[in-house]
Amino acid sequence: MSASPDTDNRIRHLLGLDALPRPQLEALLRRAQAFAEGEQAPQALAGVAVCTLFFEPSTRTRLSFQLAAQRLGAHVLGFDASTSSTTKGETDLDTFRNIEAMGVRGFVVRHKGDGAVAALAQAARPGTAVLNAGDGRSHHPTQGLLDMLTLRQAKGEDFSKLKVVIVGDVKHSRVARSDLHALRTLGCSEMRVCGPASLLPDDDTLHGCFVTHDFDAALEGVDAIFMLRLQRERMSEGLVESLDDYHRDYGLTSARLRRAAPDAIVMHPGPMNRGVEITDEVADGPQSRVLRQVANGVAVRMAALEALLAAA
Amino acid sequence: MSASPDTDNRIRHLLGLDALPRPQLEALLRRAQAFAEGEQAPQALAGVAVCTLFFEPSTRTRLSFQLAAQRLGAHVLGFDASTSSTTKGETDLDTFRNIEAMGVRGFVVRHKGDGAVAALAQAARPGTAVLNAGDGRSHHPTQGLLDMLTLRQAKGEDFSKLKVVIVGDVKHSRVARSDLHALRTLGCSEMRVCGPASLLPDDDTLHGCFVTHDFDAALEGVDAIFMLRLQRERMSEGLVESLDDYHRDYGLTSARLRRAAPDAIVMHPGPMNRGVEITDEVADGPQSRVLRQVANGVAVRMAALEALLAAA
Amino acid sequence: MSASPDTDNRIRHLLGLDALPRPQLEALLRRAQAFAEGEQAPQALAGVAVCTLFFEPSTRTRLSFQLAAQRLGAHVLGFDASTSSTTKGETDLDTFRNIEAMGVRGFVVRHKGDGAVAALAQAARPGTAVLNAGDGRSHHPTQGLLDMLTLRQAKGEDFSKLKVVIVGDVKHSRVARSDLHALRTLGCSEMRVCGPASLLPDDDTLHGCFVTHDFDAALEGVDAIFMLRLQRERMSEGLVESLDDYHRDYGLTSARLRRAAPDAIVMHPGPMNRGVEITDEVADGPQSRVLRQVANGVAVRMAALEALLAAA
Repeated sequence: MSASPDTDNRIRHLLGLDALPRPQLEALLRRAQAFAEGEQAPQALAGVAVCTLFFEPSTRTRLSFQLAAQRLGAHVLGFDASTSSTTKGETDLDTFRNIEAMGVRGFVVRHKGDGAVAALAQAARPGTAVLNAGDGRSHHPTQGLLDMLTLRQAKGEDFSKLKVVIVGDVKHSRVARSDLHALRTLGCSEMRVCGPASLLPDDDTLHGCFVTHDFDAALEGVDAIFMLRLQRERMSEGLVESLDDYHRDYGLTSARLRRAAPDAIVMHPGPMNRGVEITDEVADGPQSRVLRQVANGVAVRMAALEALLAAA
Repeated sequence: MSASPDTDNRIRHLLGLDALPRPQLEALLRRAQAFAEGEQAPQALAGVAVCTLFFEPSTRTRLSFQLAAQRLGAHVLGFDASTSSTTKGETDLDTFRNIEAMGVRGFVVRHKGDGAVAALAQAARPGTAVLNAGDGRSHHPTQGLLDMLTLRQAKGEDFSKLKVVIVGDVKHSRVARSDLHALRTLGCSEMRVCGPASLLPDDDTLHGCFVTHDFDAALEGVDAIFMLRLQRERMSEGLVESLDDYHRDYGLTSARLRRAAPDAIVMHPGPMNRGVEITDEVADGPQSRVLRQVANGVAVRMAALEALLAAA
Repeated sequence: MSASPDTDNRIRHLLGLDALPRPQLEALLRRAQAFAEGEQAPQALAGVAVCTLFFEPSTRTRLSFQLAAQRLGAHVLGFDASTSSTTKGETDLDTFRNIEAMGVRGFVVRHKGDGAVAALAQAARPGTAVLNAGDGRSHHPTQGLLDMLTLRQAKGEDFSKLKVVIVGDVKHSRVARSDLHALRTLGCSEMRVCGPASLLPDDDTLHGCFVTHDFDAALEGVDAIFMLRLQRERMSEGLVESLDDYHRDYGLTSARLRRAAPDAIVMHPGPMNRGVEITDEVADGPQSRVLRQVANGVAVRMAALEALLAAA
């Protein structure tokens, strides 16, 4: 439901990857690949205003969307709702409707509440498009798309023979959920999930995944490793004993990486905790695709903004 | 004096509506109406730099001006002087002159001090234009203009037969003062003002107005209701007993609204305190023009920026 | 070393003025002069993305660079790393590489650490240009350039007969260091430096300068006076007794100014402490070039951005 294709198969909002059909997901990836290769569309959104409306701050994701929108010729407005003193007790919906009434047509929204972005999309006028830049633990669709693009660039378009592993705090991760949605849609055959029991979800997130707490075993022969960031608050919450323990059990080192396929790629959504979930050697090594992911992020966001907002 | 038309009737600064002659006020409204209907002028301010210089923060007003300036092709710079640590004890005038010296030609200034924006305009070089985005309790001319535009769209250009009421904390409201200036200029015949005695001014703000503390009476047969925001600090200042009391006496409910003319419109400058000065039912009801006001805000600001800054 | 001209004499980064050869420094000044006189290049950086990456905040310097980049047609992104909560313990280098990976080609970087900007430039990819917007006490090359441009406009291109004095907290001043580098490169014959012993450096910064603690003597017959800002923390650090004492000994008053050549010019990098290092009368007087410096700042930054980033 959350991808909301309308009758002519045009995507109206991009809220999650769970309901984005494979043809539309692949069309976004093909277009993003073209942008990644240097395709220009400097007038695609000429005269269109896009607002990055962040109820939860994230400078890097905001900059990536801003750059993508600028490269398409849009006017970009930034609204950092987390620090604005001027919302003055106004509801999120009133803030959204207000900016929409100014004539802004594209909204890039981040929110700490699950479902909060979809709720704004639900209230949007015809002609307004909402892109989810991350809500709660639920969705981060452009991160999922950029991870898929990075994986295709390394391994080709056929995911049916790929073995991948997602490692770390899957429980609290919208990145992991969006990756899993997309991997399923694209027909990945072997999805492994690895982390301490305290950081793995007990809902249907892991449907169809092979789940293990043994990182060494999880890495055997995989083609791609999706590392997740460990939030420091997991320690104070008692979910992780210590950074040292976490690194010993779930840190990706060069030695461990040798268990994966020789041409396996390593991804991380950033920002990285170097020395915790990943060592410098791996983060900066030849198998790392961390900076490629960032570059692909702009390409994917250009594709998504264009798909939702360019004149038909 | 504050509208400062120069010898060729061109407005130099837009500081207040008290001295803006009717022909110039109506010209701005006509141009704003054209923008509201979709008129484009994407090159009108090409190469012109505009700075939103806010000594008092207001994200929404800043965004509205930013969008207006972008739609005219201006370069827009934001200077949030309320949080900038870099002014480092510098005077407001030095900050202004400094940005002016960079080649910025348009200044959108908000300031908590009455007269502070006019003081900067006084010091401006030839060729620099200052737009008041709100100073103290005194002026908020673009809000007054957008309210007039909203009223004209609903009731036509002839205000001579209109009955209007302004409700709430008129004493501290630059919105109310700017509305009253414009209503007088446009020949409105019956201006009512309603609020608790503690929130009504005792100066000449209310000249020519019918003043009452009885909201029900004030609403009888009016064509337009200008609701004002109740600042929460009025409670701690002892000017208002409680939000409940205020709502009972001066909150606009559906029941009360029926006292007005059947096609009366309801306006509010936002952000709204839902459940205090206005109920959800009214705010979101068919007579509400709240979001239309926001849309008109961009149109009015485009007209003002163009009038002051476009090449003659 | 820090100016890094590459094999075709193109400047790759602008990190300091100590190693910028005279022909390239003069070429920048000539181009800046053309911009100061109204030369336009609205497409020079079309499609190029520039990020102002400030690890130390400075609204005015950031705005000046932003305006310069906009006037050349660049897309400008702002990253205030000093307040961003999203760097989340990430290293400065990871932050830089991340934004670089997004496709940003120009970086305007300010940092409180000496050498920190050069370290990022060292790690930059081919095609990426770094402009130092101030690091520690070391370099502020565009300030040095704008001061030289201001001096040339007043005194002509031949600095060999000029007498100049730099006054104040030279010890902690990157502005003073950049000015001294440029003055030497341009062949200034008589550089005087004046300030209390506690605020003068004991390293080779003052090589070739005439050093004195006597402000009256230092002013005799000079053609240009470079005043420096007194940071208030010098009092708590015990380096300055009181603002009054400092003003008495090193404040530039009209009376003192008469010791200089009759057509001497007065410069200050701003923001000014009026009544401390400079009086209102001097700051706003006919010999002050303070606002001219600000205007020249945009021109110099346009020249630098163009030199580093425009297509060859």
